[in-house]
Amino acid sequence: MAGRRTETMLARRMVAGGGDPGRRPDELIIEEPLEVRLDGHLVGTTMRTPGHDFELAVGLCFTDGLLGGAPVESCRYCGTGTAVETEFNVVSVDTGGRAPQPTPRLSTASSSCGICGSVQLDELADRLAPIAAHDPWDLDLLFGVVDAVGAAQELFTRTGSVHAAASFRRDGGVELVREDIGRHNAVDKVVGRLLLDGSLPATGRGLFVSGRASFEMVQKGWAAGFELVLAISAPSALAVHTAQRAQMTLCGFLRDDAFNVYTTPDR
Amino acid sequence: MAGRRTETMLARRMVAGGGDPGRRPDELIIEEPLEVRLDGHLVGTTMRTPGHDFELAVGLCFTDGLLGGAPVESCRYCGTGTAVETEFNVVSVDTGGRAPQPTPRLSTASSSCGICGSVQLDELADRLAPIAAHDPWDLDLLFGVVDAVGAAQELFTRTGSVHAAASFRRDGGVELVREDIGRHNAVDKVVGRLLLDGSLPATGRGLFVSGRASFEMVQKGWAAGFELVLAISAPSALAVHTAQRAQMTLCGFLRDDAFNVYTTPDR
Repeated sequence: MAGRRTETMLARRMVAGGGDPGRRPDELIIEEPLEVRLDGHLVGTTMRTPGHDFELAVGLCFTDGLLGGAPVESCRYCGTGTAVETEFNVVSVDTGGRAPQPTPRLSTASSSCGICGSVQLDELADRLAPIAAHDPWDLDLLFGVVDAVGAAQELFTRTGSVHAAASFRRDGGVELVREDIGRHNAVDKVVGRLLLDGSLPATGRGLFVSGRASFEMVQKGWAAGFELVLAISAPSALAVHTAQRAQMTLCGFLRDDAFNVYTTPDR
Repeated sequence: MAGRRTETMLARRMVAGGGDPGRRPDELIIEEPLEVRLDGHLVGTTMRTPGHDFELAVGLCFTDGLLGGAPVESCRYCGTGTAVETEFNVVSVDTGGRAPQPTPRLSTASSSCGICGSVQLDELADRLAPIAAHDPWDLDLLFGVVDAVGAAQELFTRTGSVHAAASFRRDGGVELVREDIGRHNAVDKVVGRLLLDGSLPATGRGLFVSGRASFEMVQKGWAAGFELVLAISAPSALAVHTAQRAQMTLCGFLRDDAFNVYTTPDR
């Protein structure tokens, strides 16, 4: 159903100071638009790697706060019946009309002339409760999480250009890995899978992201209720402030068998 | 005017198998929303690193095709006068009403139920002429471009978590480097600077991007008229198809003193 995820093309490899090594096959990641609809209304379009499209659509609606607590009744491809190549690029999430009508995400900024990160953070805190109190995590186990996710990054191994997100448990066990050309999509696929499995909020779970921890990545992790976010690269300052407010553990900047701990719950 | 670009926080460094090394200062990249308006109408909001905000706003309007050929008359911060911390997070680009009224970018997808990458590519080709015919580039010079941009990535050196884009000439000389937490923002800042300098289309110039070459990165390079795009990481399949259509040279996947050439002009 989901279509191909890689495409092989010929590329010429240029070597510094070398001659002409000729052309050879190279496996590239597929990038296609996915249009997401909620009860028939347009939510938005994301450039994604095909596969796990229902998870992506459901996760995107959930982490953006569009479901409003409504249960997902069904998820389907919206095919036109005439264009085979496009019919798997539109997904409709259906709540039987119980979710509020979505407004395109960009327009939410139009309500005020002045915006800043702290305002966004306040709006988020109005919508999301802090992560529930829990025992401290054994952070030494996170090194094993990084290794386990790395071994499971099938598309990255083949193309070298795809992000990963993963859900893992307090004992370090990785339960779910998703890959996508978009960092946000990889996280939404993980969250969407957990939602479809009835496993949200993600109590007792951590979220792995292969890139940086930007504000939006921490926001998605908070929306899903992850107790911890582990990023391979560094967080932004706003991401750290957001994790503090969420009462979430935020780790990142993994280099040379070490990583940084930016926040831990302070109550 | 542009505000701080990094913030120092305390972080605890966890070392594999090690004891508690304590907390130490860590410099993090700032991430703040920038709301962009065109002749007073909302275009969208992007999470960006402050600095070069006018370039970003102008570049974003231009690469998204929103200016419609209208010249930029002015660019200003839209302050409310009451909230100091927010007044540098809204930029209005003014064409004296000559640009068409922008529609929020997400809604463009609502006109059709079926979409796919080739449809997006066709729409782009309707709007943009192929890159003008030119002499082949000396691709051996690109190794020097990578080194020169790397040496100029000031914020990356300090934070380890920020993307770069750069404009360079056919002789390998780098003329402009911009850094941002968002890949697209870094490119828009470069394009915006060139536009404000009257240097578009970017004939005889190449565009460097520090991450992957996704569809949108190649689209932005095409819109600005760059003859060549050089990405540190790999392109997506759709990005290669787009570069082919644009008659653009696309290079990427730099590893071990070598890179791949995915497309060259074929006329």
